[in-house]
Amino acid sequence: MPAQRISSMDEEGLRLAFEEAKKSYSEGGIPIGSVLLRPNASKPNGIEVLGSGHNERIQKSSATLHGEISALEDAGRLKPEVYRNSTIYTTLSPCSMCTGAILLYKIPRVVIGENKNFLGGEDLLRDRGVEVIVIGDKDCQELMARFIEEKPEEWNEDIGGE
Amino acid sequence: MPAQRISSMDEEGLRLAFEEAKKSYSEGGIPIGSVLLRPNASKPNGIEVLGSGHNERIQKSSATLHGEISALEDAGRLKPEVYRNSTIYTTLSPCSMCTGAILLYKIPRVVIGENKNFLGGEDLLRDRGVEVIVIGDKDCQELMARFIEEKPEEWNEDIGGE
Repeated sequence: MPAQRISSMDEEGLRLAFEEAKKSYSEGGIPIGSVLLRPNASKPNGIEVLGSGHNERIQKSSATLHGEISALEDAGRLKPEVYRNSTIYTTLSPCSMCTGAILLYKIPRVVIGENKNFLGGEDLLRDRGVEVIVIGDKDCQELMARFIEEKPEEWNEDIGGE
Repeated sequence: MPAQRISSMDEEGLRLAFEEAKKSYSEGGIPIGSVLLRPNASKPNGIEVLGSGHNERIQKSSATLHGEISALEDAGRLKPEVYRNSTIYTTLSPCSMCTGAILLYKIPRVVIGENKNFLGGEDLLRDRGVEVIVIGDKDCQELMARFIEEKPEEWNEDIGGE
């Protein structure tokens, strides 16, 4: 675990993403949460929350509102340069679609809660110069594992099947 | 142009996608449209429209509702096997995010109106075994070029900047 690269913003980002995941779980949804943050000296703790959200497959019958897409959608229309100074936090390794969204907006840094339950496009992100940090967070891991055990079919649908 | 691989479903798919693009343009939006189709003998002309949509950046202040994402969102929750027998049509070469969505759902075939105004993730799609057909459609090309000339800043924002 590359502890030296984890800032207080990263701790806060993962905490907020996990709050979103728990919220989704409490709604009966897939417990994956995400936030988009950037440093901003005029904000409390120097952190600006640009957007936040969670997987909405079950809640909104959505095929595209994964955690990261929800956070980007919540952030709304941003100028390209805003993304370049941001970090996206997600409780679970990003799927192909969310990986592609990160590449589209040239978000330079991705902090991932865990990648044991699902391994997404981390290699592609690294290949394209994105900094990828995997925390290996036990809480993220346990919540996701619990959901997969409880609702394997919904989970399978969310990742487009085996 | 690989004319032999273009079916009547393909002609209809591109026509419907272009209708979506024109609708978006008439609303002041980015003129990119998309539809998800599959063969279905019980439907008129043997074609089932699973979903359709267009870019909604301007209309809905959306950062994620590109044409293809809109079509997939419109299709709603589908079982993994439904995508495996479908084709997605888009008036413009798919960006990283839409490329990733196609890979997520393992859509085996992508028909693209044109890729002169923007070249997206076609190589990645081919690398992953997706059949990619570029029509080189003049109407798609002209409408998109007109929009880029009229609203270059909005277009730049939609593709995350240069």
